[in-house]
Amino acid sequence: MTVNTTVRAQTDAPAVTEQLAKFVTHHPSRGWNDEVEAQAVRTFLNWLGCAVGASHHATVDAALGAVNVLQPSGQAGILGRNDRVDIASAALINGISSHTFDFDDTHLKTIIHPAGPVASALLALGEHTHANGRDFLDALVLGIDVACRVGNAMYPDHYDRGWHITGTTGMLGGAAACARMLKLDAHKTQMAIGIAASQPVGLREQFGTMTKPLHPGAAARAGLMSALMAQHGYTASLRALEAPRGLMQTISDKCDWNEISGELGERFEISFNSYKPFACGIVIHPSIDACVTLVQQHKIDPLAIERIELRVHPLVLELTGKKTPSDGLQAKFSVFHSCAAGILFGQAGEHQYEDEIVQRVDVIALRDRINATVDTRIAEASVDATIHLKNGAHHHLFLKHAIGSLQRPMTNTLLEQKFHNLVDSVLGAVRANGLIAQAWDFANASDVGEIARATQG
Amino acid sequence: MTVNTTVRAQTDAPAVTEQLAKFVTHHPSRGWNDEVEAQAVRTFLNWLGCAVGASHHATVDAALGAVNVLQPSGQAGILGRNDRVDIASAALINGISSHTFDFDDTHLKTIIHPAGPVASALLALGEHTHANGRDFLDALVLGIDVACRVGNAMYPDHYDRGWHITGTTGMLGGAAACARMLKLDAHKTQMAIGIAASQPVGLREQFGTMTKPLHPGAAARAGLMSALMAQHGYTASLRALEAPRGLMQTISDKCDWNEISGELGERFEISFNSYKPFACGIVIHPSIDACVTLVQQHKIDPLAIERIELRVHPLVLELTGKKTPSDGLQAKFSVFHSCAAGILFGQAGEHQYEDEIVQRVDVIALRDRINATVDTRIAEASVDATIHLKNGAHHHLFLKHAIGSLQRPMTNTLLEQKFHNLVDSVLGAVRANGLIAQAWDFANASDVGEIARATQG
Repeated sequence: MTVNTTVRAQTDAPAVTEQLAKFVTHHPSRGWNDEVEAQAVRTFLNWLGCAVGASHHATVDAALGAVNVLQPSGQAGILGRNDRVDIASAALINGISSHTFDFDDTHLKTIIHPAGPVASALLALGEHTHANGRDFLDALVLGIDVACRVGNAMYPDHYDRGWHITGTTGMLGGAAACARMLKLDAHKTQMAIGIAASQPVGLREQFGTMTKPLHPGAAARAGLMSALMAQHGYTASLRALEAPRGLMQTISDKCDWNEISGELGERFEISFNSYKPFACGIVIHPSIDACVTLVQQHKIDPLAIERIELRVHPLVLELTGKKTPSDGLQAKFSVFHSCAAGILFGQAGEHQYEDEIVQRVDVIALRDRINATVDTRIAEASVDATIHLKNGAHHHLFLKHAIGSLQRPMTNTLLEQKFHNLVDSVLGAVRANGLIAQAWDFANASDVGEIARATQG
Repeated sequence: MTVNTTVRAQTDAPAVTEQLAKFVTHHPSRGWNDEVEAQAVRTFLNWLGCAVGASHHATVDAALGAVNVLQPSGQAGILGRNDRVDIASAALINGISSHTFDFDDTHLKTIIHPAGPVASALLALGEHTHANGRDFLDALVLGIDVACRVGNAMYPDHYDRGWHITGTTGMLGGAAACARMLKLDAHKTQMAIGIAASQPVGLREQFGTMTKPLHPGAAARAGLMSALMAQHGYTASLRALEAPRGLMQTISDKCDWNEISGELGERFEISFNSYKPFACGIVIHPSIDACVTLVQQHKIDPLAIERIELRVHPLVLELTGKKTPSDGLQAKFSVFHSCAAGILFGQAGEHQYEDEIVQRVDVIALRDRINATVDTRIAEASVDATIHLKNGAHHHLFLKHAIGSLQRPMTNTLLEQKFHNLVDSVLGAVRANGLIAQAWDFANASDVGEIARATQG
């Protein structure tokens, strides 16, 4: 990869704010191939499941408690709950819930979770304006393109510096998407992006607290409000992104403008979106996948396992080397618990990280039989796993790419399973099936509010 | 001044988030001397006049138009208008209007305009909760202290990088102030500051657009919401300000922790607040003041002036060297227009920067007789001015400090004149007098909402 790293105070940066605004305004509806379109629908389904799944979490309760102090009007629904609030607050709360389990989509080039800030803003706005599914998906693809292209231009410097890139690019994506849905002209779209540029949200220091999911939520809110303000004549700098004291040069030493302009309208960043099969950091996904695959392929009884040997990339133990996690949050940082739960339950969804699961005797017994050794020859995407049985036999698998990666994407069937695992406990399997059907046909929805209301009541 | 400049990724920074939270929670009511108390009331009066004065500006119309899309509840008033909105939106809009004329208070050590983010959040919250004036002023002093101390720690590096420091510290001040008004305990106050830390607002690139006053407005809104979220149990990092990937190390290479801890509870940053006598950048205040003083002292007829020679600090011409401004916005960046208007009208308030004034023949004629020469021996706070008359006489003044500086603060009488100049055209002189009286006695107000309602209807 060639990177044009720029120094500070670059006064002759290309007019990328204007370029993105014109692109978002003028790109034709469904102006992409079937694969891009499919990713848009998959991104929406995955986001919806995450938001409904976490909708009764304490994080959402607390945020909604604060919002209700404002006595909001009931313009839009909180997914998975009976509550209705104004559209800006709905964008905020649905954005929070969609990221609460850290189980939402990932743009792997930048680690941006793009749906949260964009889809949350769009659904709230669209429910109020009775937008149709086609307009929603157009705006989703274009908004995500804006956020991820700006992210590509700044990553990794911007992220290394301490910013949670999801919320510091997401407000741009949300603003662009809402501007598109509102059918603003190119100038007002440029203003919307410009107003949003002053409102980046998110620090990595907040990881592990409720403020992490606030980042996509607040970005969704800021994006939506920026578009509404631009619609009402509010102004911002025409060069809010690229000017020497604009957003990008202020928050990143790396500003590769070509990442914004290159193949604009031809390559769509949503193509590089991925969906987590496991409710934990991506770095341990290969280990879980390998263990589950070996056990299922060879029909291994967990009680027959003598020990498991994993050879892993150094980051696995650096980030997730916790040997004896005592609760769900710690377990997310334990490759040992994650593999044990995967073997015993056939999956590692949010439920497998609940405290009672982490503390179960059979989980702990298996967890303690798993060893992980750093091997610098193993790529971050890979793992080398061997299961030794008590009868002396062993089974070996070298896994190059885990399920959920771009090389081995989640199938639609797996996405549906994940959706059920998230949503059934909230709405039941029958309603979950109905939502899945609505989501797959979302391009033909005449009113996007229907799917939001279908998660309520 | 000794500055302990730190390098990035400082892992052992002192626990300033906790320290500030405990201070804000436990410092006694009116725990300061009469001078600090007087500054609090002066800051409030000045902020109120600025907000009412700009309340019908196109900037406020546009922002309020967007807010009204949310169909907000009528919890709090928009100063100077009939509109009522929810408290978060009132914080936003009053914060915007108070900075629209760029005529609000200035903490000269950092160029922070501290009242906007703090007072706007407090009045909206206090109107809803029926807080009294004593609680308001306590929270105002403490909130401004939090914002300005964090600003001191990062200035000038943070500002040089491109951030509009008013909005990138203001959300902390707003959160701390609202936490105090809500009587949150120290832990929840720490959470409020932590939640706000993820939401810095503002880029210098936006100067000259409506998004500049959005910065204090959005910071006020974020601060208020952060306090409400903390009240409802929302969590954030305990070290959100000082951690390696916390706010301060992420947005500033300079982090002088002593500026936060030093003399905490003894020295109050509101003591260093100043109030602009002229509605333009501070760098040209000495020139205007010198011209007005010479003309008044020597009873000079403007028509008798042959030419004026100013010897100025280099920044004066760099920032405000526009010889022939064509409208009000350009005129704010013209030392020539500013001095001419000051001489002809005896003041340089917001009205003296209206387009019709800028285009008046007599203003242009006088403006064209003013010369300014850079003299590196002249300090930024000073000017050397000579008025040459057509009769051959001349009058000279070397002005060390302009009116409105810390050395020559605005008197209460001048603050009242400024208030009238801002408010009379909106509410009339009689109501302005009533507001002034209410503001001077604000410490004894039983319900802060009364003064907000007194600006409405």
